Amino acid sequence: MTEIPRTMNASVLTEVQSIAVEQRPVPAVAPDEVLVQVAAVGVCGSDVHYYQHGRIGDFVVEAPIILGHELSGRIVAVGDDVDPARIGRRVAVEPQRPCRVCEFCKAGQYNLCPKMEFFATPPIDGAFCEYVTIQADFAFDIPDSISDNAAALMEPLSVGIAAAQKGGVKVGDRVLIAGGGPIGIIAAQVARAFGASEVIVSDINPSRRELAQQYGVTRVVDPAAESLDGLDAHVFIDASGAAPAIRAGIRATRPGGTVVLVGSADEIPFSVPDVAMREINVTGIFRYTGTWPIARTLVESGQVDLDSLVTHVFGLEQVEEALTGDGALDSLKRIVRPGVARVADPVAAARGEA
Amino acid sequence: MTEIPRTMNASVLTEVQSIAVEQRPVPAVAPDEVLVQVAAVGVCGSDVHYYQHGRIGDFVVEAPIILGHELSGRIVAVGDDVDPARIGRRVAVEPQRPCRVCEFCKAGQYNLCPKMEFFATPPIDGAFCEYVTIQADFAFDIPDSISDNAAALMEPLSVGIAAAQKGGVKVGDRVLIAGGGPIGIIAAQVARAFGASEVIVSDINPSRRELAQQYGVTRVVDPAAESLDGLDAHVFIDASGAAPAIRAGIRATRPGGTVVLVGSADEIPFSVPDVAMREINVTGIFRYTGTWPIARTLVESGQVDLDSLVTHVFGLEQVEEALTGDGALDSLKRIVRPGVARVADPVAAARGEA
Amino acid sequence: MTEIPRTMNASVLTEVQSIAVEQRPVPAVAPDEVLVQVAAVGVCGSDVHYYQHGRIGDFVVEAPIILGHELSGRIVAVGDDVDPARIGRRVAVEPQRPCRVCEFCKAGQYNLCPKMEFFATPPIDGAFCEYVTIQADFAFDIPDSISDNAAALMEPLSVGIAAAQKGGVKVGDRVLIAGGGPIGIIAAQVARAFGASEVIVSDINPSRRELAQQYGVTRVVDPAAESLDGLDAHVFIDASGAAPAIRAGIRATRPGGTVVLVGSADEIPFSVPDVAMREINVTGIFRYTGTWPIARTLVESGQVDLDSLVTHVFGLEQVEEALTGDGALDSLKRIVRPGVARVADPVAAARGEA
Amino acid sequence: MTEIPRTMNASVLTEVQSIAVEQRPVPAVAPDEVLVQVAAVGVCGSDVHYYQHGRIGDFVVEAPIILGHELSGRIVAVGDDVDPARIGRRVAVEPQRPCRVCEFCKAGQYNLCPKMEFFATPPIDGAFCEYVTIQADFAFDIPDSISDNAAALMEPLSVGIAAAQKGGVKVGDRVLIAGGGPIGIIAAQVARAFGASEVIVSDINPSRRELAQQYGVTRVVDPAAESLDGLDAHVFIDASGAAPAIRAGIRATRPGGTVVLVGSADEIPFSVPDVAMREINVTGIFRYTGTWPIARTLVESGQVDLDSLVTHVFGLEQVEEALTGDGALDSLKRIVRPGVARVADPVAAARGEA
Repeated sequence: MTEIPRTMNASVLTEVQSIAVEQRPVPAVAPDEVLVQVAAVGVCGSDVHYYQHGRIGDFVVEAPIILGHELSGRIVAVGDDVDPARIGRRVAVEPQRPCRVCEFCKAGQYNLCPKMEFFATPPIDGAFCEYVTIQADFAFDIPDSISDNAAALMEPLSVGIAAAQKGGVKVGDRVLIAGGGPIGIIAAQVARAFGASEVIVSDINPSRRELAQQYGVTRVVDPAAESLDGLDAHVFIDASGAAPAIRAGIRATRPGGTVVLVGSADEIPFSVPDVAMREINVTGIFRYTGTWPIARTLVESGQVDLDSLVTHVFGLEQVEEALTGDGALDSLKRIVRPGVARVADPVAAARGEA
Repeated sequence: MTEIPRTMNASVLTEVQSIAVEQRPVPAVAPDEVLVQVAAVGVCGSDVHYYQHGRIGDFVVEAPIILGHELSGRIVAVGDDVDPARIGRRVAVEPQRPCRVCEFCKAGQYNLCPKMEFFATPPIDGAFCEYVTIQADFAFDIPDSISDNAAALMEPLSVGIAAAQKGGVKVGDRVLIAGGGPIGIIAAQVARAFGASEVIVSDINPSRRELAQQYGVTRVVDPAAESLDGLDAHVFIDASGAAPAIRAGIRATRPGGTVVLVGSADEIPFSVPDVAMREINVTGIFRYTGTWPIARTLVESGQVDLDSLVTHVFGLEQVEEALTGDGALDSLKRIVRPGVARVADPVAAARGEA
Repeated sequence: MTEIPRTMNASVLTEVQSIAVEQRPVPAVAPDEVLVQVAAVGVCGSDVHYYQHGRIGDFVVEAPIILGHELSGRIVAVGDDVDPARIGRRVAVEPQRPCRVCEFCKAGQYNLCPKMEFFATPPIDGAFCEYVTIQADFAFDIPDSISDNAAALMEPLSVGIAAAQKGGVKVGDRVLIAGGGPIGIIAAQVARAFGASEVIVSDINPSRRELAQQYGVTRVVDPAAESLDGLDAHVFIDASGAAPAIRAGIRATRPGGTVVLVGSADEIPFSVPDVAMREINVTGIFRYTGTWPIARTLVESGQVDLDSLVTHVFGLEQVEEALTGDGALDSLKRIVRPGVARVADPVAAARGEA
Repeated sequence: MTEIPRTMNASVLTEVQSIAVEQRPVPAVAPDEVLVQVAAVGVCGSDVHYYQHGRIGDFVVEAPIILGHELSGRIVAVGDDVDPARIGRRVAVEPQRPCRVCEFCKAGQYNLCPKMEFFATPPIDGAFCEYVTIQADFAFDIPDSISDNAAALMEPLSVGIAAAQKGGVKVGDRVLIAGGGPIGIIAAQVARAFGASEVIVSDINPSRRELAQQYGVTRVVDPAAESLDGLDAHVFIDASGAAPAIRAGIRATRPGGTVVLVGSADEIPFSVPDVAMREINVTGIFRYTGTWPIARTLVESGQVDLDSLVTHVFGLEQVEEALTGDGALDSLKRIVRPGVARVADPVAAARGEA
């Protein structure tokens, strides 16, 4: 059995645009928790946003915080109420702690729990560090066939699953996805797994359009060159956060269809007749509930490929680099491996060459 | 048996803001239709809008048209495929003709039929005339206990039912309704019938707020004086069409709740985080499907009171007056009775004094 | 503040058909719990069944057990994590403890939790005693307008609500209920509150049929004298547990309708064509989730009357009498009041005369 | 343009167990219909049942009837209201004529239409003949990539789709299918297309179990040798019609799961606790609505393979042989090609060798 140290390295956002590796106590394990030695952490756009701006909407960073909420690892200790046989197991972590007693939790909508504690959302620490605790039922065993990186990326995959569920994607549907970034590409794969017969990705960036075609997308569109009007999509998933894309997507949705907003645009002009007179349902997703078992199935079966999305791998001392880098357009997913101090060549590491 | 004349009086919108009574042929009855002698026709805001502006959105009046689509009457002739026993029956008319063969019709969403012919929507004539035809299954027998006026108003009642259905109003819900006009008051009554335990109506007009309280509303709010934030409504129905009301209503809707847009605002600024991060469903209704049997039940049982909504009754020669009058705020529903040339005192007639 | 004694009186099923009042320790309050001084406990058919047979299906009484699971009371102490302001409040108790971590609990179906601990279901003690503990979120504050008896009967009311929810009862529906006992009469009231326009109760007992008519039932049927075929019910709720009633009810359900089995028949011959070729949904309910807030609303608003269902009131020393009495047919609900040793005239007490 | 003859060959069930080829008039084309020259007709178990017993449930053969309802062909004439450009197109036929005006039709449940006219269901003739008419919107254009046989088998595929829809099969589900005949194998393929991660087929026949494994089934079970208890299926589809299989399947369904009865067993003993206390939904399907577009997508994309199911091909004079043959167990789908008098080697023809 692994000896658990008292302290660990943690990569901390000390103030806006400033990250430092600090020593922190390894967290204590409550009776219903497991202690996870972190293997891989995906970098999310929200991590970048907190780093750059110190806030997202009403969530404001007011004290040093550890970012990172897409994670996998290995259980190294368990609380008193948890089966000790779980020690040693590789797990993907659902990074949230709902209260379990409020009306939303008891109705199966724990993502809407007003007392939710979510990793890397102020003031809750995240996973750019060596150890985290999580309640045992939010650590999901993964088979050997799923890599640490893929297990970490079951978090953005859960976003894609939640979007497809909320959109009611079903066999035979035509699904439009705006934005060919990581969430868009994952959502496209998920839509196919849900049975969609056509998946159209729109992105103004040609390299993203080209990339999308490798992930089961049946058609890509450059919205600057081609109108989406008349596309007649059953479901439109916005993963762009761009107001023009949202408006075009709503118009491209068929009467009675559903629009799921995943990207975080602020305020958009919204045409009531476009929505009301065609009885379109406009909604969004805020995280997810119960998606990890589905994510595991989709990855294990090969229906969704997460490994190939990883373009860069960094060590714990390189979190600031991971959060800035050379821009989003030529990268998809950046991974931090907290057990590693420093990675010589992040791109080669992503290709498994390091 | 009533002898059917060859021609009839019809009140025609000949051009914008001009109505004339003309002689028109009584329409021929197709095999699957009934001929209805019109008893009562409610005046809808859309009739007023066509009269004043000659268009609503993409629907443009390009030729003389008979307005009016909220109607009741008596069957005076039937087509070859219709049971002749129906002659003489009093009916409420669902004023639409779906194609019955398109994908939407066959899926039970005939309101979304792209080939729909709807009364008083250009270029289809409506009911400010003595006789109309309708397919037999869209003429619903009504019992003696339901008045002609109430039978006509089963059309706006159907709008209220469709709104409650789309919003998923259910036992124990808190329902916010913006706008205390006819649709708002009908929707409030319907929400109670669907089991809502709280129905809050917001309106800037004090007389409308006062009126709403007579129809089962549990609370009225003056949005100019009181914030709706924190109301935590399960369902918000906008019957105001006013952008500030819609925005306030969305904020007043609880996470996971539903917003149904009935009023026809044009374009509103729409806060994506308000919707997406709280997983609110924003949708609207476009007419209705299958609501007349429910409407009949609600009226017959007394759960919904339509008769008291009628504030003015006019004859066929007074349609222009009915469409203009002295403003909307002191009237709720105006009724045209095509069998009557002229009503001496429209307000007294509404009270049944004439 | 009330002083909490160390021991209490409890009416214990010591062996089949034998009840004794014993001294038991007052249960300790866990941090997330409240201690409730029991005011009223309804007698359920399952209590009678355990008393008579010592088992229900796979649940077997293997050690002395306290029965009773329909209860109200007053909070007299709270655990460390519970707001002490709740001490003194009158509450209705939802008598179950789900695990909150399994797949069912997290999906909002905690009634299906395989680790559920339910009051008066072996080996979990119930409420025929002076004090019980319950997790704080399962004790629902009730207003003064709701009596102790009615608060206790929010448990069978929850059964009726769950049945109506599972059946999808909605405005305009025709609902058939087999069995005019307490559950049938409560389900009938609930169906009306959900908007059903017709509620038909079938029972072979004439006094039950007569009684049902006092609770909003629109029609009663004697199944021995009258066939239900052709009734064309949207929803059929069986509260009889009788195989012939279930078969007749399935036949009386319209194509596409729903059958909810509440009564606990064992095995019935089941006609596949009756179900499959008419696409009827046959299901049942096992307890409830999230119903107490709805129950409170229905009782507070007067939509459901529970007080008048109480026909007998007993003290704690009279539990055996309450479980046997003079048969079910002339009684509806029997209440035990654990704070009272003995009630001189149980019928008069039910009428509020004692 | 093809000249349409006045008469045609039709293979008629003249009395029980007697088929004769007769001359019949080519049916007249109504304004909303197309005339289809029949290319391929699948043999269904119901055809065999009518041939052998002269009835299925309440449907009784009282006059000579043409059987066959799984068909494809080519449009050779159109009614006055149909686009003549459709002449020459290859089509798959949805073999039903709903009334389009009843409550069920207008609610999107036209399969429950009480006035339905369905091919080969007495007294409506079917497709073992050279020409049939069908309303234009029930003839679905098919691309060249779909064979005549596969287009005909879109009818049993529609049964499989309807079963998966009714069962709510979704990504990640475990689906149990009883019966490895044509419907079972099609349902298994459909379940995979709907995203099921595990599809288990149970059949007592070893050759059927072996065959099933070629169609995406993840596990086969011999119910005589192995219990299904504890399988914990989200959805159970019975395509066996065997009472023991239905009972075992219900027990193998997880709490809250769904049971869809497709096979036509008569009456089975039904354990109420098995269903009610685990809140299982037991339902069935009666034909389908709106499935052909989905069927086309599934076949075109290769998600479902129908061609390989065909084991025998017969000519119009061999319908009796097709309906009897050498038993069901060594054949899956038998096809009749009405344009061909006689096929020398039905098995070789199925392999495309003739």
